[in-house]
Amino acid sequence: MRILLANDDGFHAPGLWPLYEALLPLGDVWVCAPEREQSARSHALTMHKPLRARERKPQCYAISGTPADCVYLGLHGLLEDRPDVIVSGVNRGANLGNDVLYSGTVAAAMEGALHGIPAVAVSLHFDWTQEVETLHFDEAARVGALVAKQVLERGLPHRRLLNVNVPNRPHVEGLRVVPLGERLYDVLADHRTDPRGRPYWWIGGAPQGFAGGEESDGAVCDEGFATITPLSADLTDHDELRRVRTWFS
Amino acid sequence: MRILLANDDGFHAPGLWPLYEALLPLGDVWVCAPEREQSARSHALTMHKPLRARERKPQCYAISGTPADCVYLGLHGLLEDRPDVIVSGVNRGANLGNDVLYSGTVAAAMEGALHGIPAVAVSLHFDWTQEVETLHFDEAARVGALVAKQVLERGLPHRRLLNVNVPNRPHVEGLRVVPLGERLYDVLADHRTDPRGRPYWWIGGAPQGFAGGEESDGAVCDEGFATITPLSADLTDHDELRRVRTWFS
Repeated sequence: MRILLANDDGFHAPGLWPLYEALLPLGDVWVCAPEREQSARSHALTMHKPLRARERKPQCYAISGTPADCVYLGLHGLLEDRPDVIVSGVNRGANLGNDVLYSGTVAAAMEGALHGIPAVAVSLHFDWTQEVETLHFDEAARVGALVAKQVLERGLPHRRLLNVNVPNRPHVEGLRVVPLGERLYDVLADHRTDPRGRPYWWIGGAPQGFAGGEESDGAVCDEGFATITPLSADLTDHDELRRVRTWFS
Repeated sequence: MRILLANDDGFHAPGLWPLYEALLPLGDVWVCAPEREQSARSHALTMHKPLRARERKPQCYAISGTPADCVYLGLHGLLEDRPDVIVSGVNRGANLGNDVLYSGTVAAAMEGALHGIPAVAVSLHFDWTQEVETLHFDEAARVGALVAKQVLERGLPHRRLLNVNVPNRPHVEGLRVVPLGERLYDVLADHRTDPRGRPYWWIGGAPQGFAGGEESDGAVCDEGFATITPLSADLTDHDELRRVRTWFS
């Protein structure tokens, strides 16, 4: 089995290498990771300028692009053969609820799914006040590899991926397959003045919990379970399709 | 009615102002657009550095950020009151099939939907060999405003938006409400050498038509119809949810 590992925190991120180690027993692992952190870059692709790829160790590339660039270039330029699964992570921070729309970690997995390769995104859910030394990337990597193993054995339908979030603890309570909920943030657009007296804005508020019910990803992950959510690249809302058709007929 | 208009091609893009004019009869229009082109920026949000917003004419702001930044800052900083609808476009180029995952135009509308405001993304579908002078932004703007009017009257469920693509012609054949198909591109990762002898890559191939059947968005838009696709911000695949549950039980 051939595995392509990507992330969005960058080649030197603390979550990448525990996952690399955990995937090694499953097959031949290749790494394509951004040379610098690319958080909140979402699904951007770099098509208007060149990319550099540097092989830092055998089969492990640091790339001057986004997470989706890394997967694209891995698939079509760097890997000798097509991988059987794409794994992205471990992200330093959860990707729960609507976070998946902003996440570079999920976008890297989605890019694989769009090219017809099953994919898994893995993120570590922790309180942002916690120090990096207290983060259990090893446990998240263990869970991520366990899910990747299942995907290698059983496959996923076309354009599908699994989004995995692991709570920050030495041992998770178990695994739960649950739908996305809705992540709530404070809304904030702070109006300030720079040292030269000119106005500027700073946007983005702190996370404020989850909506979507007790059985949605955020609530279940908060209880200590690793959550697994199957995602589709097809955003069509088929119920609305029928309703909106009546507007224009 | 209050309308927030955004785009990803930038404040000076040729598709923005025809849509502005077409929306004026519907209500009080505010513009929040990137000061420079932001194509293929997807759903990136700028939370790690300041943003500048310059009021170029009354209620019309050029913002030093991404399309999603523009909507966020419009909603929480610039507009006096909450808008009733968010419209994004007219994008210079289609956003059909899996394009919606990369599109800044769709991301701007999605950002509105995530904040509970109904949203419409409007894109002009044309052959890239056509000159900008031959582009019928007026017709795309007319269709976009017609769809926005329906949304203002009838509403959309929480976290939903309408993705509209208009073929480049003086008059469309009609409007069709259809699911996303799959857009096909040549895969290309071109390996080159720079003037100093160092290797680099250039990724991204040309569009190669659509898959997904005769009734999907790309095929129908190619026939001369404006297409409308309801999209959901909830990417959960509920069929797979049931299947994947059996793996871990």
